[in-house]
Amino acid sequence: MDIKERLGKSIRNVPDFPVKGIVFRDITTVLKDISLFNDVINCFADKFKSAQIDKIAAIESRGFILGAPLAVKLNKPFIPIRKKGKLPADKIEAAYSLEYGAAVIEMHKDALSAGEKVMLIDDLLATGGTVNAAVELIEKLNAVPVAAAFLIELIDLSGRASVKNKKLEIFSILQY
Amino acid sequence: MDIKERLGKSIRNVPDFPVKGIVFRDITTVLKDISLFNDVINCFADKFKSAQIDKIAAIESRGFILGAPLAVKLNKPFIPIRKKGKLPADKIEAAYSLEYGAAVIEMHKDALSAGEKVMLIDDLLATGGTVNAAVELIEKLNAVPVAAAFLIELIDLSGRASVKNKKLEIFSILQY
Repeated sequence: MDIKERLGKSIRNVPDFPVKGIVFRDITTVLKDISLFNDVINCFADKFKSAQIDKIAAIESRGFILGAPLAVKLNKPFIPIRKKGKLPADKIEAAYSLEYGAAVIEMHKDALSAGEKVMLIDDLLATGGTVNAAVELIEKLNAVPVAAAFLIELIDLSGRASVKNKKLEIFSILQY
Repeated sequence: MDIKERLGKSIRNVPDFPVKGIVFRDITTVLKDISLFNDVINCFADKFKSAQIDKIAAIESRGFILGAPLAVKLNKPFIPIRKKGKLPADKIEAAYSLEYGAAVIEMHKDALSAGEKVMLIDDLLATGGTVNAAVELIEKLNAVPVAAAFLIELIDLSGRASVKNKKLEIFSILQY
């Protein structure tokens, strides 16, 4: 089986979570299958190992589970983008709307230097709201968002088309 | 420099965060130094590579940043312990009080099987409240908590002594 097929069988579909009408794609079943989890990290690493990337920024908190092993594997500094109120030092913020609800994410001001090339990673590309907010944070620090990687892309929500930065390379392993 | 000295120089101390009187130990400066971040993961891996561990459970969300690379490196299934309301499938919960405030953590019921040996990981051992709650989750599923690993241990808060499960091996890299 290829990785998409294995992911399709492993990911648990939970209806009406977190709100009625949403089918939640639960990846804890993937993380528990260490062979598959390893292959997911290797899939991201193979895709981006030759890319010009200075830092890997991951979005709290499922993005941390993918981004941290990838950063270690690719030997790139790891930058956490966190929910509002979690980062302790000088920071910037960006607001966005989600598939359900709204939120603010933050990044430390000293996370990136001007001109640095940044790869984003998160578990899920839905409407693209989170990516646009993360791109906004990177650009506020005069760094360069070059790629965004996701385990899952929900095609029907057109997140890829809604990404405002058209230079951003968007990569997903499994599409629904 | 040994890893403790490098961590001591890298970790940023932020006074009065998240509340007045607390000195927050900010590890984002460590994560950004990929050589040091790598050595932290290798330090945990060297310590536990020969231990009898079936699964690695990490506590949301900074625990994810350490636990996920360690699970990949040690080739052990990764189990996320999350804040209340985040896990979508059948779950159990445990309440605890923090150094500041209170919270509930949850784990999926199918995360562990009876008798499995579990290693916990988080960034910080403070009063030990989170560890006791995580141990309670593991024991509720009839699995066996065997070790708990932390990047930082705040000695003055006596977390190590307050851990109720006296068989749990507690390991920390840097002590304050």
